[in-house]
Amino acid sequence: MNISKKRKNGMTVKSKVWIEIQGLPFFGEGRRDLLNNIETTGSISQAAKQLGISYKKAWSYITSMEGRIGVNLVKKQVGGKGGGGTALTEEGKALVDKFNKLLAGTQETINISFEEIF
Amino acid sequence: MNISKKRKNGMTVKSKVWIEIQGLPFFGEGRRDLLNNIETTGSISQAAKQLGISYKKAWSYITSMEGRIGVNLVKKQVGGKGGGGTALTEEGKALVDKFNKLLAGTQETINISFEEIF
Repeated sequence: MNISKKRKNGMTVKSKVWIEIQGLPFFGEGRRDLLNNIETTGSISQAAKQLGISYKKAWSYITSMEGRIGVNLVKKQVGGKGGGGTALTEEGKALVDKFNKLLAGTQETINISFEEIF
Repeated sequence: MNISKKRKNGMTVKSKVWIEIQGLPFFGEGRRDLLNNIETTGSISQAAKQLGISYKKAWSYITSMEGRIGVNLVKKQVGGKGGGGTALTEEGKALVDKFNKLLAGTQETINISFEEIF
Protein backbone atom coordinates (compact mmCIF):
# COMPACT_ATOMS: atom_id res chain seq x y z
CA MET A 1 0.00 0.00 0.00
CA ASN A 2 1.34 3.39 -1.01
CA ILE A 3 0.93 5.54 2.12
CA SER A 4 2.19 8.66 0.45
CA LYS A 5 -0.26 8.36 -2.40
CA LYS A 6 -3.14 7.66 -0.03
CA ARG A 7 -2.30 10.70 2.08
CA LYS A 8 -2.39 12.91 -0.99
CA ASN A 9 -5.71 11.49 -2.22
CA GLY A 10 -4.18 10.80 -5.61
CA MET A 11 -3.44 14.49 -6.17
CA THR A 12 -0.99 15.61 -8.82
CA VAL A 13 0.20 19.14 -9.43
CA LYS A 14 0.07 20.73 -12.88
CA SER A 15 1.50 23.97 -14.19
CA LYS A 16 1.54 26.20 -17.21
CA VAL A 17 4.27 28.71 -17.92
CA TRP A 18 4.32 31.47 -20.50
CA ILE A 19 6.16 34.68 -21.28
CA GLU A 20 4.49 38.05 -21.65
CA ILE A 21 5.74 41.32 -23.07
CA GLN A 22 4.02 44.45 -21.80
CA GLY A 23 1.19 42.41 -20.32
CA LEU A 24 0.40 40.44 -23.48
CA PRO A 25 1.24 36.77 -24.11
CA PHE A 26 4.39 36.47 -26.19
CA PHE A 27 5.54 32.86 -25.97
CA GLY A 28 4.21 29.61 -24.52
CA GLU A 29 3.92 25.93 -25.27
CA GLY A 30 1.77 26.45 -28.37
CA ARG A 31 4.25 28.78 -30.06
CA ARG A 32 7.13 26.65 -28.87
CA ASP A 33 5.44 23.72 -30.67
CA LEU A 34 5.00 25.84 -33.78
CA LEU A 35 8.71 26.74 -33.91
CA ASN A 36 9.66 23.14 -33.11
CA ASN A 37 7.51 21.90 -35.97
CA ILE A 38 9.00 24.41 -38.39
CA GLU A 39 12.48 23.19 -37.50
CA THR A 40 11.42 19.54 -37.89
CA THR A 41 9.43 19.85 -41.12
CA GLY A 42 11.25 22.77 -42.75
CA SER A 43 7.86 24.19 -43.66
CA ILE A 44 5.50 26.66 -42.03
CA SER A 45 2.45 25.13 -43.70
CA GLN A 46 3.41 21.62 -42.53
CA ALA A 47 4.10 22.94 -39.04
CA ALA A 48 0.72 24.68 -38.96
CA LYS A 49 -1.03 21.55 -40.21
CA GLN A 50 0.47 19.47 -37.41
CA LEU A 51 -1.00 21.90 -34.88
CA GLY A 52 -4.38 22.08 -36.62
CA ILE A 53 -4.07 25.79 -37.36
CA SER A 54 -4.07 27.64 -40.69
CA TYR A 55 -0.93 28.85 -42.44
CA LYS A 56 -2.26 32.38 -42.02
CA LYS A 57 -2.58 31.94 -38.27
CA ALA A 58 0.90 30.42 -37.97
CA TRP A 59 2.37 33.23 -40.00
CA SER A 60 0.60 35.85 -37.88
CA TYR A 61 2.05 34.25 -34.72
CA ILE A 62 5.54 34.38 -36.19
CA THR A 63 5.39 37.97 -37.41
CA SER A 64 3.80 39.05 -34.13
CA MET A 65 6.59 37.43 -32.09
CA GLU A 66 9.31 38.77 -34.37
CA GLY A 67 7.87 42.25 -34.29
CA ARG A 68 7.71 42.29 -30.53
CA ILE A 69 11.28 41.20 -29.84
CA GLY A 70 12.75 42.80 -32.95
CA VAL A 71 14.61 39.74 -34.26
CA ASN A 72 13.85 37.14 -36.92
CA LEU A 73 12.90 33.75 -35.53
CA VAL A 74 12.56 31.97 -38.89
CA LYS A 75 14.47 32.23 -42.16
CA LYS A 76 14.03 31.06 -45.74
CA GLN A 77 16.24 28.18 -46.81
CA VAL A 78 17.22 28.50 -50.45
CA GLY A 79 17.72 25.49 -52.72
CA GLY A 80 18.37 21.90 -51.60
CA LYS A 81 16.48 18.77 -52.55
CA GLY A 82 13.03 20.07 -51.65
CA GLY A 83 13.65 23.42 -53.34
CA GLY A 84 14.05 25.40 -50.15
CA GLY A 85 11.86 25.87 -47.12
CA THR A 86 11.89 27.51 -43.74
CA ALA A 87 14.19 26.99 -40.77
CA LEU A 88 14.70 28.61 -37.40
CA THR A 89 17.31 31.31 -36.99
CA GLU A 90 19.84 31.02 -34.17
CA GLU A 91 17.60 33.34 -32.15
CA GLY A 92 14.57 31.13 -32.87
CA LYS A 93 16.44 28.02 -31.75
CA ALA A 94 17.70 29.80 -28.64
CA LEU A 95 14.19 30.90 -27.69
CA VAL A 96 12.88 27.32 -27.97
CA ASP A 97 15.82 25.93 -26.00
CA LYS A 98 15.57 28.49 -23.23
CA PHE A 99 11.82 28.01 -22.90
CA ASN A 100 12.21 24.22 -22.73
CA LYS A 101 14.85 24.63 -20.05
CA LEU A 102 12.59 26.97 -18.08
CA LEU A 103 9.68 24.52 -18.36
CA ALA A 104 11.66 21.46 -17.30
CA GLY A 105 13.13 23.19 -14.26
CA THR A 106 9.76 24.62 -13.30
CA GLN A 107 7.81 21.38 -13.35
CA GLU A 108 10.53 19.66 -11.35
CA THR A 109 10.57 22.39 -8.71
CA ILE A 110 6.79 22.44 -8.45
CA ASN A 111 6.70 18.68 -7.99
CA ILE A 112 9.23 18.93 -5.17
CA SER A 113 7.37 21.81 -3.48
CA PHE A 114 4.11 19.92 -3.80
CA GLU A 115 5.58 16.83 -2.14
CA GLU A 116 6.91 18.99 0.70
CA ILE A 117 3.78 21.05 1.29
CA PHE A 118 0.94 18.58 0.68
CA MET B 1 19.26 52.81 -18.56
CA ASN B 2 18.28 49.39 -17.37
CA ILE B 3 20.56 47.00 -19.27
CA SER B 4 18.96 43.89 -17.82
CA LYS B 5 15.49 44.94 -18.88
CA LYS B 6 16.67 45.90 -22.34
CA ARG B 7 18.34 42.52 -22.81
CA LYS B 8 15.11 40.75 -21.93
CA ASN B 9 12.98 42.90 -24.27
CA GLY B 10 10.60 43.67 -21.42
CA MET B 11 9.71 40.00 -20.99
CA THR B 12 8.05 38.76 -17.83
CA VAL B 13 7.31 35.15 -16.96
CA LYS B 14 3.85 34.05 -15.87
CA SER B 15 2.61 30.78 -14.45
CA LYS B 16 -0.53 28.98 -13.47
CA VAL B 17 -0.59 26.11 -11.00
CA TRP B 18 -3.45 23.74 -10.23
CA ILE B 19 -4.05 20.37 -8.62
CA GLU B 20 -5.66 17.44 -10.40
CA ILE B 21 -7.10 14.21 -9.06
CA GLN B 22 -7.22 11.33 -11.51
CA GLY B 23 -6.57 13.64 -14.43
CA LEU B 24 -9.35 16.11 -13.64
CA PRO B 25 -8.91 19.61 -12.19
CA PHE B 26 -9.51 19.58 -8.44
CA PHE B 27 -8.19 22.86 -7.07
CA GLY B 28 -6.78 26.07 -8.47
CA GLU B 29 -6.85 29.81 -8.01
CA GLY B 30 -10.58 30.10 -8.75
CA ARG B 31 -11.61 27.59 -6.11
CA ARG B 32 -9.03 28.98 -3.71
CA ASP B 33 -10.71 32.38 -4.16
CA LEU B 34 -14.12 30.81 -3.54
CA LEU B 35 -12.97 29.27 -0.24
CA ASN B 36 -11.20 32.48 0.73
CA ASN B 37 -14.37 34.48 0.10
CA ILE B 38 -16.48 32.06 2.14
CA GLU B 39 -14.11 32.50 5.06
CA THR B 40 -14.17 36.29 4.70
CA THR B 41 -17.91 36.77 4.16
CA GLY B 42 -19.24 33.80 6.14
CA SER B 43 -21.62 33.17 3.27
CA ILE B 44 -21.54 30.98 0.18
CA SER B 45 -23.93 33.25 -1.72
CA GLN B 46 -21.83 36.34 -0.92
CA ALA B 47 -18.66 34.48 -1.87
CA ALA B 48 -20.22 33.38 -5.16
CA LYS B 49 -21.43 36.93 -5.88
CA GLN B 50 -17.92 38.32 -5.41
CA LEU B 51 -16.68 35.89 -8.07
CA GLY B 52 -19.56 36.56 -10.43
CA ILE B 53 -20.82 32.98 -10.28
CA SER B 54 -24.18 31.61 -9.14
CA TYR B 55 -24.78 30.09 -5.72
CA LYS B 56 -25.60 26.83 -7.48
CA LYS B 57 -22.24 26.84 -9.28
CA ALA B 58 -20.35 27.64 -6.07
CA TRP B 59 -22.15 24.88 -4.23
CA SER B 60 -21.41 22.39 -7.01
CA TYR B 61 -17.69 23.27 -6.82
CA ILE B 62 -17.71 22.70 -3.06
CA THR B 63 -19.56 19.38 -3.12
CA SER B 64 -17.42 18.20 -6.03
CA MET B 65 -14.20 18.99 -4.15
CA GLU B 66 -15.47 17.48 -0.91
CA GLY B 67 -16.61 14.34 -2.65
CA ARG B 68 -13.28 13.84 -4.35
CA ILE B 69 -11.08 14.18 -1.27
CA GLY B 70 -13.62 12.74 1.17
CA VAL B 71 -13.52 15.55 3.73
CA ASN B 72 -15.72 18.57 4.42
CA LEU B 73 -14.17 21.88 3.41
CA VAL B 74 -17.01 24.10 4.67
CA LYS B 75 -19.29 23.93 7.71
CA LYS B 76 -22.46 25.62 8.92
CA GLN B 77 -22.02 28.17 11.68
CA VAL B 78 -25.03 28.16 14.03
CA GLY B 79 -26.30 31.34 15.77
CA GLY B 80 -24.36 34.55 16.29
CA LYS B 81 -25.34 38.06 15.29
CA GLY B 82 -26.11 37.29 11.66
CA GLY B 83 -28.04 34.13 12.57
CA GLY B 84 -25.36 31.72 11.38
CA GLY B 85 -23.53 31.27 8.11
CA THR B 86 -20.78 29.20 6.55
CA ALA B 87 -17.12 28.89 7.51
CA LEU B 88 -14.19 26.79 6.38
CA THR B 89 -13.35 23.61 8.27
CA GLU B 90 -9.77 23.08 9.45
CA GLU B 91 -9.26 20.97 6.32
CA GLY B 92 -10.65 23.75 4.14
CA LYS B 93 -8.31 26.30 5.74
CA ALA B 94 -5.36 23.93 5.40
CA LEU B 95 -6.06 23.39 1.70
CA VAL B 96 -6.13 27.14 1.04
CA ASP B 97 -2.96 27.72 3.08
CA LYS B 98 -1.04 24.91 1.40
CA PHE B 99 -2.08 26.04 -2.06
CA ASN B 100 -1.06 29.64 -1.33
CA LYS B 101 2.29 28.40 -0.07
CA LEU B 102 2.77 26.30 -3.21
CA LEU B 103 1.88 29.26 -5.43
CA ALA B 104 4.16 31.73 -3.70
CA GLY B 105 7.14 29.40 -3.83
CA THR B 106 6.45 28.52 -7.44
CA GLN B 107 6.28 32.05 -8.78
CA GLU B 108 9.44 32.96 -6.91
CA THR B 109 11.33 29.97 -8.29
CA ILE B 110 10.12 30.60 -11.84
CA ASN B 111 11.20 34.22 -11.62
CA ILE B 112 14.67 33.17 -10.52
CA SER B 113 14.94 30.50 -13.25
CA PHE B 114 13.76 32.99 -15.82
CA GLU B 115 16.40 35.52 -14.80
CA GLU B 116 19.06 32.82 -15.01
CA ILE B 117 18.01 31.34 -18.36
CA PHE B 118 16.86 34.37 -20.34
